[in-house]
Amino acid sequence: MTALDEYKAQRAELIASERALRFDAQTIANATDKEKRAVEIVSALRAKEAQEIWNADAEKLMYPGMEFLTAKKTILGTKLYQVVKKLPKGGLLHGHMDAMCDAKFLLQSALEYPQMHIRIDTVITSGLTLPLPQFKPLTADLCAQYANAPSLTSPEYVPGSWVPLTKARNEFAHGGSEAFDNWVVGSMMINPKEAYVDYNTSVKIWEKFATTFRVAGGMIRYEPVMKQYMRQVMLSSIEDGISYVELRINFFYKLGIREDGAETLGHQDYLRLLREVIQEVKGKMKAENREDEFIGAKVIYTTLRFIDNQELLWYLEDCMTLKKEFPDLIAGFDLVAQEDTNKPLIYYIESLLWFQEESKKRGLDIPFIFHAGETLDDGGAADSNLYDALLLGTKRIGHGFSLAKHPLLMKMCKERGVAIEVCPISNEILRLTSSMPMHPLPVLLNNGVSVALCPDDPSVFGNMGLSFDFFQVIVASEVTNILSLKQLARQSLEHSSLDVEDKKRAVEIWEKRWNAYIEEIVSSKTA
Amino acid sequence: MTALDEYKAQRAELIASERALRFDAQTIANATDKEKRAVEIVSALRAKEAQEIWNADAEKLMYPGMEFLTAKKTILGTKLYQVVKKLPKGGLLHGHMDAMCDAKFLLQSALEYPQMHIRIDTVITSGLTLPLPQFKPLTADLCAQYANAPSLTSPEYVPGSWVPLTKARNEFAHGGSEAFDNWVVGSMMINPKEAYVDYNTSVKIWEKFATTFRVAGGMIRYEPVMKQYMRQVMLSSIEDGISYVELRINFFYKLGIREDGAETLGHQDYLRLLREVIQEVKGKMKAENREDEFIGAKVIYTTLRFIDNQELLWYLEDCMTLKKEFPDLIAGFDLVAQEDTNKPLIYYIESLLWFQEESKKRGLDIPFIFHAGETLDDGGAADSNLYDALLLGTKRIGHGFSLAKHPLLMKMCKERGVAIEVCPISNEILRLTSSMPMHPLPVLLNNGVSVALCPDDPSVFGNMGLSFDFFQVIVASEVTNILSLKQLARQSLEHSSLDVEDKKRAVEIWEKRWNAYIEEIVSSKTA
Repeated sequence: MTALDEYKAQRAELIASERALRFDAQTIANATDKEKRAVEIVSALRAKEAQEIWNADAEKLMYPGMEFLTAKKTILGTKLYQVVKKLPKGGLLHGHMDAMCDAKFLLQSALEYPQMHIRIDTVITSGLTLPLPQFKPLTADLCAQYANAPSLTSPEYVPGSWVPLTKARNEFAHGGSEAFDNWVVGSMMINPKEAYVDYNTSVKIWEKFATTFRVAGGMIRYEPVMKQYMRQVMLSSIEDGISYVELRINFFYKLGIREDGAETLGHQDYLRLLREVIQEVKGKMKAENREDEFIGAKVIYTTLRFIDNQELLWYLEDCMTLKKEFPDLIAGFDLVAQEDTNKPLIYYIESLLWFQEESKKRGLDIPFIFHAGETLDDGGAADSNLYDALLLGTKRIGHGFSLAKHPLLMKMCKERGVAIEVCPISNEILRLTSSMPMHPLPVLLNNGVSVALCPDDPSVFGNMGLSFDFFQVIVASEVTNILSLKQLARQSLEHSSLDVEDKKRAVEIWEKRWNAYIEEIVSSKTA
Repeated sequence: MTALDEYKAQRAELIASERALRFDAQTIANATDKEKRAVEIVSALRAKEAQEIWNADAEKLMYPGMEFLTAKKTILGTKLYQVVKKLPKGGLLHGHMDAMCDAKFLLQSALEYPQMHIRIDTVITSGLTLPLPQFKPLTADLCAQYANAPSLTSPEYVPGSWVPLTKARNEFAHGGSEAFDNWVVGSMMINPKEAYVDYNTSVKIWEKFATTFRVAGGMIRYEPVMKQYMRQVMLSSIEDGISYVELRINFFYKLGIREDGAETLGHQDYLRLLREVIQEVKGKMKAENREDEFIGAKVIYTTLRFIDNQELLWYLEDCMTLKKEFPDLIAGFDLVAQEDTNKPLIYYIESLLWFQEESKKRGLDIPFIFHAGETLDDGGAADSNLYDALLLGTKRIGHGFSLAKHPLLMKMCKERGVAIEVCPISNEILRLTSSMPMHPLPVLLNNGVSVALCPDDPSVFGNMGLSFDFFQVIVASEVTNILSLKQLARQSLEHSSLDVEDKKRAVEIWEKRWNAYIEEIVSSKTA
């Protein structure tokens, strides 16, 4: 053997040794011939489009995995996106209920109901700077009272007074209904200028981010809209190849407004409604002979990480009560909101330890599924939420963006089977990373940590379903291929909150769909 | 013990276990009381300035560790910077000779010589868009020929013709000599708009980056300027608390121009000149009773990673010839230029293996000290340079930006004592990371990999010395403290190319200086 041959053999061995540590090593080792062929086809497509689409114009600042909001239109025009779109993705494990559906869909739904009203805090003086709209469905009495109120752009409009939504839209003086829709939808989303220029830091963009929820919440809380919204979450997920969803729901003290405007829709009512919708969607799928495409949905009970311990105890009690009544629906407990600016988990430690003890006593299985490490902090309070999440036995970690910096905690995740719900596009738009190539995801994958890709708040980011996040991940790496995505999809089911039997069935069904998918790729119908 | 106490004990233990893996664990474990006090003082100062300076105006997009070019003025106004400035930093292990001194200093030096000429390729039509200037010292004949040439901004100027530098400056019509200086200096640096707007990708900013070397090179290659430049590299480093420098020098085929304009200054001449300057600076320091502040300088022979193998063989031969004549100066061999767009190490593998064999035969110790992994690539050719660098026994790794993604290679670095020359500000301006909080450095530090912080090309980035890079690192982390910086400084000497005796002496001197520094901090003269 020459020195060169020897070198090349050593090199191949070293690369193989490192690849063997990766999360997808087993999947790749067990690949069928057809799967190997599919890897070649899809990787060649990626390389081709890198040249012909992403790097076509040397003057443009474009590249694979670039800023999502700027790239979205280009992504939609790629063949690779079409391939990823059809991929059976398993479960969507990290999505916030109030930010799951297309913002246009939400506005359309709200427009169907004459009870829905809109108001603003300041007078509109031009179409260029519009205030944040507020929405609320009113009782019959109030509807009558505001029926002839001056519209939003009328000189007679009194800030803070309600206007029927349809009227406000029809009489919108600064560009008509199209401009009205753009305004309302824009107030529920983040646009490129906001993310990449005006609020180009994590703390600043969260300010804008938070306002999108205030706008949408006024419509989503209305029972008939809520029901449409729940249905749409499931139907649109199914269309994206997602067969199971786990929804983080904020159980505010007052959760919803009845069809007649009464503010009496409670937590039980909400879960009953959700259960109905799940059954309805399952029925619909069965009727279409597509029952394999939808396994179901579950709920992670969440409250906000800025309340105090007394309030938290109320929510923890409420969570246990709901778990007792809806054992099949409630899958876990979590605290949400920006980690950098709010209370760390350690602040709530006594309440959380009590909850573990108490739920056990009551025979309730409510694991924590904590957001932790969604931060650029290094060794401070937000980053240290990872220690508490793991010590409190979190079932998975939401985001875990800073986990890549923690070798020991990554090891714990592997040993304990804790998967990380990585939200690539969310992290990018909320300015934890500037692009996919800068995202620390490869650190987790190369260390063999289990990951489930998630969209987080697709209505705000525009990354509906999972296709966009899968796309950004495969396009930004040379070592991540279609079989890596297979493993990511599988892990999303394996680490879901489905019970043993359902999980087994879900994985079996998914494997069948996967094989059909590979068949389609290699027979070149897709790529 | 209550459940709460037990939890807190477990938590402390977990955090301690992870901190024990860090690169600075030993240093922190062995800290003296004074050092512990210094940690408190400096960390408190950092926290105070985070609030009072970085986060003082909620409307501004400012934060600790933000984009260097935008932050520089603010950094200079902090007390923390003054503390870091005084820190004895050990060695500067990664700096490119042609980009080491303040660009203004270079222009000032060039202005001293009437032989220095300037030209441009196109006519200047306005002061807003100025072409790239070119510089060259001319022979006496040519100087006479161009003595009365029309100046750059004259209507008679013929593009491509030389103008005496002083004349061009004095007669610069678009804003006079100040505007002239801004133009020339600006063409040797990267400004915030270029880095963060116009060329906001790694590939694009390298285009601008490369032009700065073409401009500066025309002046630096001139023997008398060269000598001033070499001296200034050492003197300015000493003023920044650096006691040793290791310079990467591109040995172009034609290296320099003599005082009289003859293009005959060869590689031997260059090294003789450098040796002279080192001795001169040592003499000067001794005369000032400051000999402990300067240990010396060495050279890493570099050529460009876009030449072919035949050319490389010429340079490898040249490197061995020089090593034989200047064994104390030549410390290693490296290939430079952007990894993403040029040839990977594996392309040169036969030549590099030959060099290892051949230099061994000749009894020459010339380790590779390779740039590798200065890329956002994941698993492609540029990222894979890390495999080859390590398999070829690299003494250190230049940049190693993508090393954080490689658990096995990090392990190899630890086992083999390979330190990583991390260049935080360079990486940020060349758009591998958008800010320090996004930089993967903590992954290396938390895994216990040895790191030496380096400025890379300070004349282009404006991060003269090591203070700015040390500052960006300590300000962007809660877990990195003044003792972490101590360990970084120590590692820069331990992993230097100094021989055993010199290294021992260098570390001893440095420790003495460190103790004085701590003394100064705790006696509150500094912080």
